[in-house]
Amino acid sequence: MIKKTINLNGVSKMLLADPESSLAEVIREQFGLTGTKVGCGKGQCGACSVIMNGKLVKSCMTKIKRVQDGAYVTTIEGFGTPTDLHPLQLAWVVHGGAQCGFCSPGFIVSAKALLDENINPTRDQVRDWFHKNRNACRCTGYKPLVDAVMDAAKVLRGEMTKTELAFKLPEDGRIWGTNYPRPTAIAKVTGTIDYGADLIAKMPAGTLHLALAQAKVSHAKILSIDTSEAEKMPGVEKVITHKDVKGKNRITGLITFPTNKGDGWDRPILCDEKVFQFGDAIAIVAADTEAHARAAADKVKVNLEQLPAYMSAPAAMADDAIEIHPGTPNVYYEQKRAKGADTGPVMKSAASVVEGEYYLQRQPHLTMEPDVGFAYFDEDGCLTIHSKSIGIYLHHAMICPGLGIEPEKLRLVQNPAGGTFGYKFSPTMEALVGVAAMATNKPVALKYDYYQHITYTGKRSPFFVNLKYGADKDGKIVAMEGDWIVDHGPYSEFGDLLTVRGAQFIGAGYGIPNIRGVGKTVCTNHAWGSAFRAYGSPQSFFASESLMDELAAKMGKDPLELRYLNVYRPGDTTPTGQTPDGYSFPEMIDKLRPMYKEALELAKKESTPELKKGVGVSIGIYGCGLDGPDSSEVWVELTPDGVTLSSSWEDHGQGADIGALGTCHEGLRPLGISPDKIKLVMNDTALVPNSGPSGGSRQQVMTGNAIKVGCEMLVNAMRKSDGTFRTYDEMKAENIPLKYSGKWTASMCTPCDENGQGNPFPVYMYGVFMAQVAVDTKTGKTKVENFTVMADIGKINNKLAVDGQIYGGVAQGIGLALSEDFEDLSKHTSLVDCGLPYTKDIPDNFKIIYFENPREHGPFGAAGVGELPLTSPHAAVINGIYNATGVRIRQAPALPEKVLAGLKALG
Amino acid sequence: MIKKTINLNGVSKMLLADPESSLAEVIREQFGLTGTKVGCGKGQCGACSVIMNGKLVKSCMTKIKRVQDGAYVTTIEGFGTPTDLHPLQLAWVVHGGAQCGFCSPGFIVSAKALLDENINPTRDQVRDWFHKNRNACRCTGYKPLVDAVMDAAKVLRGEMTKTELAFKLPEDGRIWGTNYPRPTAIAKVTGTIDYGADLIAKMPAGTLHLALAQAKVSHAKILSIDTSEAEKMPGVEKVITHKDVKGKNRITGLITFPTNKGDGWDRPILCDEKVFQFGDAIAIVAADTEAHARAAADKVKVNLEQLPAYMSAPAAMADDAIEIHPGTPNVYYEQKRAKGADTGPVMKSAASVVEGEYYLQRQPHLTMEPDVGFAYFDEDGCLTIHSKSIGIYLHHAMICPGLGIEPEKLRLVQNPAGGTFGYKFSPTMEALVGVAAMATNKPVALKYDYYQHITYTGKRSPFFVNLKYGADKDGKIVAMEGDWIVDHGPYSEFGDLLTVRGAQFIGAGYGIPNIRGVGKTVCTNHAWGSAFRAYGSPQSFFASESLMDELAAKMGKDPLELRYLNVYRPGDTTPTGQTPDGYSFPEMIDKLRPMYKEALELAKKESTPELKKGVGVSIGIYGCGLDGPDSSEVWVELTPDGVTLSSSWEDHGQGADIGALGTCHEGLRPLGISPDKIKLVMNDTALVPNSGPSGGSRQQVMTGNAIKVGCEMLVNAMRKSDGTFRTYDEMKAENIPLKYSGKWTASMCTPCDENGQGNPFPVYMYGVFMAQVAVDTKTGKTKVENFTVMADIGKINNKLAVDGQIYGGVAQGIGLALSEDFEDLSKHTSLVDCGLPYTKDIPDNFKIIYFENPREHGPFGAAGVGELPLTSPHAAVINGIYNATGVRIRQAPALPEKVLAGLKALG
Repeated sequence: MIKKTINLNGVSKMLLADPESSLAEVIREQFGLTGTKVGCGKGQCGACSVIMNGKLVKSCMTKIKRVQDGAYVTTIEGFGTPTDLHPLQLAWVVHGGAQCGFCSPGFIVSAKALLDENINPTRDQVRDWFHKNRNACRCTGYKPLVDAVMDAAKVLRGEMTKTELAFKLPEDGRIWGTNYPRPTAIAKVTGTIDYGADLIAKMPAGTLHLALAQAKVSHAKILSIDTSEAEKMPGVEKVITHKDVKGKNRITGLITFPTNKGDGWDRPILCDEKVFQFGDAIAIVAADTEAHARAAADKVKVNLEQLPAYMSAPAAMADDAIEIHPGTPNVYYEQKRAKGADTGPVMKSAASVVEGEYYLQRQPHLTMEPDVGFAYFDEDGCLTIHSKSIGIYLHHAMICPGLGIEPEKLRLVQNPAGGTFGYKFSPTMEALVGVAAMATNKPVALKYDYYQHITYTGKRSPFFVNLKYGADKDGKIVAMEGDWIVDHGPYSEFGDLLTVRGAQFIGAGYGIPNIRGVGKTVCTNHAWGSAFRAYGSPQSFFASESLMDELAAKMGKDPLELRYLNVYRPGDTTPTGQTPDGYSFPEMIDKLRPMYKEALELAKKESTPELKKGVGVSIGIYGCGLDGPDSSEVWVELTPDGVTLSSSWEDHGQGADIGALGTCHEGLRPLGISPDKIKLVMNDTALVPNSGPSGGSRQQVMTGNAIKVGCEMLVNAMRKSDGTFRTYDEMKAENIPLKYSGKWTASMCTPCDENGQGNPFPVYMYGVFMAQVAVDTKTGKTKVENFTVMADIGKINNKLAVDGQIYGGVAQGIGLALSEDFEDLSKHTSLVDCGLPYTKDIPDNFKIIYFENPREHGPFGAAGVGELPLTSPHAAVINGIYNATGVRIRQAPALPEKVLAGLKALG
Repeated sequence: MIKKTINLNGVSKMLLADPESSLAEVIREQFGLTGTKVGCGKGQCGACSVIMNGKLVKSCMTKIKRVQDGAYVTTIEGFGTPTDLHPLQLAWVVHGGAQCGFCSPGFIVSAKALLDENINPTRDQVRDWFHKNRNACRCTGYKPLVDAVMDAAKVLRGEMTKTELAFKLPEDGRIWGTNYPRPTAIAKVTGTIDYGADLIAKMPAGTLHLALAQAKVSHAKILSIDTSEAEKMPGVEKVITHKDVKGKNRITGLITFPTNKGDGWDRPILCDEKVFQFGDAIAIVAADTEAHARAAADKVKVNLEQLPAYMSAPAAMADDAIEIHPGTPNVYYEQKRAKGADTGPVMKSAASVVEGEYYLQRQPHLTMEPDVGFAYFDEDGCLTIHSKSIGIYLHHAMICPGLGIEPEKLRLVQNPAGGTFGYKFSPTMEALVGVAAMATNKPVALKYDYYQHITYTGKRSPFFVNLKYGADKDGKIVAMEGDWIVDHGPYSEFGDLLTVRGAQFIGAGYGIPNIRGVGKTVCTNHAWGSAFRAYGSPQSFFASESLMDELAAKMGKDPLELRYLNVYRPGDTTPTGQTPDGYSFPEMIDKLRPMYKEALELAKKESTPELKKGVGVSIGIYGCGLDGPDSSEVWVELTPDGVTLSSSWEDHGQGADIGALGTCHEGLRPLGISPDKIKLVMNDTALVPNSGPSGGSRQQVMTGNAIKVGCEMLVNAMRKSDGTFRTYDEMKAENIPLKYSGKWTASMCTPCDENGQGNPFPVYMYGVFMAQVAVDTKTGKTKVENFTVMADIGKINNKLAVDGQIYGGVAQGIGLALSEDFEDLSKHTSLVDCGLPYTKDIPDNFKIIYFENPREHGPFGAAGVGELPLTSPHAAVINGIYNATGVRIRQAPALPEKVLAGLKALG
């Protein structure tokens, strides 16, 4: 133990710590200042940034023994308070800088250090600062953060007051369609919101800390597990293996497709007979401290017989490949698509035919917050599991039999989540902490470090797509055919559904009359396939939007005009045969056309042999909802203080709070209540009804409609004959119910049939993307210099939230296009190595133009938004590279070496 | 475990806790908001006050299961920040509201709740509020707190700005003699200073928590100790008994008086052969949590043979009493006092003789913070003990052999202390945590609850004094004789020294030529005698100042004038034969006289048969220093940033920080540096030299002089021939030493000899007290309505600090006079039952008049201050009761039943 004195946030404090511990640990776990977050744990994310003796430092990388005695340390808690925000914090709120919010304290601290040096920075200086200091954000695309710093600097320079900067409620009191900040924003920018690790730091004494003993190979038979040495390690309470699991020890994939050859019971909670992928959990150590648990986990000995590891779909499909799950073929699901006439003859008579093979990589989610969860028995004896779950009721069903607990004794709660982007559709953490709490009968907590987070959470499943278009002489596509193969990793969870998405989105946006093909779901030993924003569509559009450009090139047509010719118009149907719920593509392209032309001219003008510039476009579509007649329920209740809305609108960071609040406030407008009178109760199966999971941009539509219904019921109950409304007391006096269940089901939808035909979604989102790129022909490195999005997401609930979704989604698309991957288990193990885009990797010149065409089935005309910006922006970038250089990248990402190789091949 | 949502300081937080835990525990231990303090743990001190849903609540008494879901909770952390104080916090700083500071957060929260209800309260409304809400303060006498609330309310009403309220540095930059706020004030009012329990809450994971198995009887032989059941309890690491103590298992009393019949090795760290008093520590359980440790401590079984318990000196002195420490007589020390001629003949010829027997009770310290400590091995392998020690070097010597560690491997550190008033002169806690750290080789922490704090810390030792004055016909005292008996409890620590204090202070202030008597130190089985503010003098003056009034009554003289006649004038000597260092009594009484006459008239006018009013006076004296040639050392070092002052000026709460800073700043005035450039390094034996303990008001004189010397050495070294000063760089360039050891020894002093004669102190403090009391003749209850202090403490270093010392010391004197006691082990176990004064028990009409006569041997003319206000204020109150009612109380405290009995006896 070492004793030092530090001045922490303006006060001299005695510090007692292990000299080897990090400043972040001491600040968080000892001083309880959990505003300083630990993301990557290796200085690549900046979430742990603090100012020490005037310099910005990464506290996770700063050992206490290196902290100078008497050092001045400022954390986010040393800035403003929730009731008196620092100008940077206020600007962050006003500009939507905090989405998931996990990076916000680190960014704000970093920005403070910059402004302490330079109170009048340019946008580029701000961007340089964040880039060089490795402040990473996965939600916002960085632009809103730069906007916030610029405004905060104005306030600090005295050129603007905080009052001028702050959001002002419109005179009519309506927040729908405004920049009303999300309710959690203040807690996020002040570092006072508690994410999972923060909650763990605040759990009562006696909570056990867990560590996993994990597989270090990708495929093996387990011969024996020896926990004896681990059990003797200091602080160990119990070493838990599959033998301690009271239930079926399986996470069920809830298979609903009858043609799936698996049964969905393929995923062990704790490995028993086999290891299916690298990182698989074999044992859990429960100990008094995390350090003790981890040390003991290293002592669990597993005797294995290694089996051939199939690290991609082709390998697992090989004739000699053994069945990964014995009894289930590695290709366990096939989805046909057949629309219109047989494509064979049509292709033959087509004026022009193009074909290509495309591979979209295993994109990692790279959330700032690593996975985390905890569990305990509540006061009613219910096993209560807290996690980042974005489907608390879904996960309840998926893990209940495996744990072996009565359903009514299992409670799931979502903690504030530092980003999920879909990976938390998989209930791995939930099952593990549940097992441990049941085995120890004590509160238990599990935190992944970032290595575990990358290597042992699901990933976007790669698609291998072989696609062919046949077009008439004008370029109108008359037939599409081709197959797609989905490398879904070892676990079946929703692998069939993902394969269906190929049938729904490959070639979507165009009125193609004749389609044929088949998709296959393949079991492999690489990372299991999990949900990821725009689920299935980036893979689909990478093929169909790349091939569209190839068709244009072949026919000598302009890629934008070729799209204009083909996009949905009345009479067209989607690839599943559904009538689109809108035809906004032509107007979007009309709007884009002059900008596109200008961009092309600029690229031409600015291109040099060393730096070639180009412009790429793509279109994107996504459906709002799960497949078919999706539904949601919420409760709307009048209280003495206002109205309480209860829902399980889970939050990835997208803004479930403002989504729910904005919709509810609009639904209650007849009552004229202010937004602060609406209390949100969210994401606890003991407290809220089943609103369904947060995936597929469904919540604004499904739960939004349920809220609308619930609000209507309440408003109608409160309405008097003279048109005025009863008060709470009057309602009580007249014995009128106060609480209403708002339910909504997308009854106009059907699932897709064996030919992939049906009406799977009630509402769609439409977008057109334009990327302006510059390719360094010496290095092959591509930079996106400008990005433009045309978006029709229906009526906008909250402008800040949808802007943020689009900026952030496109940023992930740029990463997908250029750098992100999780393929090499020995290399792709950190944010940097996985290709996370930093500030200067995302353009500051970023324009969004909305087309607010109201949706018939969307509440108050709204569609969803979250998936749209990641449907196909990467295709626009890839098409831009072609436009700039003539190099066609068909295997994403377009790493510099691939582009260089392409340039070389072109001579 | 229970899950709730609370809005904590403006932010919605998820709360996970044991439903039986208190809100205070959850706020402190889980949320890490240690600004909320836990003092008494039963709602009697208000240190844990928070605002919940608009109401002031005691968080230590509020169980989590009773906290409403969604409750709004505001703690001190929800107010201002160190850099932007709330007006209440600023006012607390400006008015010296935070001395030890432990009660400050609770008071400020309480005041906020008041001002939320009533923004314009009267002083009486503020006093009513604090009184009814049981906000207790042991340092300030409450008046500065009321001043602070009144000013904060002005700011909140917009009648004053924070800038107007704030302290302003004088133009000459000199802080000596000003209201410059103490350096720790801001941390104290914001709840960000860490006291022992706060530091423990912030220690690294793996720290063991200790609990004591304690004796439940007062005197017994130990037959056996069975720890087997305790060892099997959950979470237990080790059960430690005397067998685990590596050293002599004794805390040595450092006996220096050769006539002491004991050897000072009487006090076990952990009982081995005998139990000597209730609460004695028999075993220590080290476990993972405090709850586990306490549960296991209850399972330690001790087989005892009970022995007769001697609960007072007379009982222990009885002929048939056995020796408490076999081999040492229960009366183990005697101190003769013999000055001038034999008093027998003088008494015979005296015109008037009065005699009385007086008993001053076992006053409890009643600090707001219960005792606390922890220990660990530092990075150099030194056993490092943190506690509230007010004598880190002294305690080092007292516990080192008992622990059995090399002196150079033992390090002591004082934590910020929530009040000691002297009890921390005893190193009980230090030895216990030291033993536990050595036995477990891990960091260990021990917190007493308030019951333990009261029952197992030292107390003021009662004196039984038999005193006689002989006076000439004018009332001039010509002889004093009488014996005094000190009930010192079972442990010899400084019992001899305390007995010497009787010889020094009984009759002090008067030039009495002939004195005889003997004091005896008696070993008993009641609470051990520990240091307490004004050590020995309240017992002494209770006798001599009561008897003075009795003499006046007998002679029909005015008590003030009789004193005026007798007080020191040139030619007089003290009871030890020393020439006083000042003769300010006559001028103080001259100043008091008109006020005294007015008070007498007012009392007469206002008295009714139901409420009798009266006025009492007393004089008080205390010496600054330990006995004899006391000394101190400090280091003064020039650094690139300013000057660093290193000292062990320990802080009870009195203001060691401002004492050291003010003196150092004055010493460095030639350099013209601002106070914020002086860095204080304090109270860690590894970092600072031995400045001696903080007791006997010695630090301002001894360490103050050492600082003065050190500063002179540095200033002289920096001075150039032209009178200007070298910079740090110039000093370095010229290779002139930067660091100077300032040492000072009171070489003009001698210890007292076998007749109690000598020059024990270099500097004295002088005071005159006047109490205006009202006695309810129906209930016997006495209320002090006005209090006036004439104080000569030399030149004043910091006005805020000395005001605070005097207000607080007198408040303890009023408690001593009227209510405080620790006698009944079954009753005197809480703040209320021990008679702590609350706000309305201390008068708001409280005047201090200073006579700043510079002291020859005080640095810059300063004496000490801390002991003066508790020398004899209680005697003024007791004399006031006599003046009001004719009832003479000779056994303190003057409880209502005693006064009633007195009234009855008078008829």
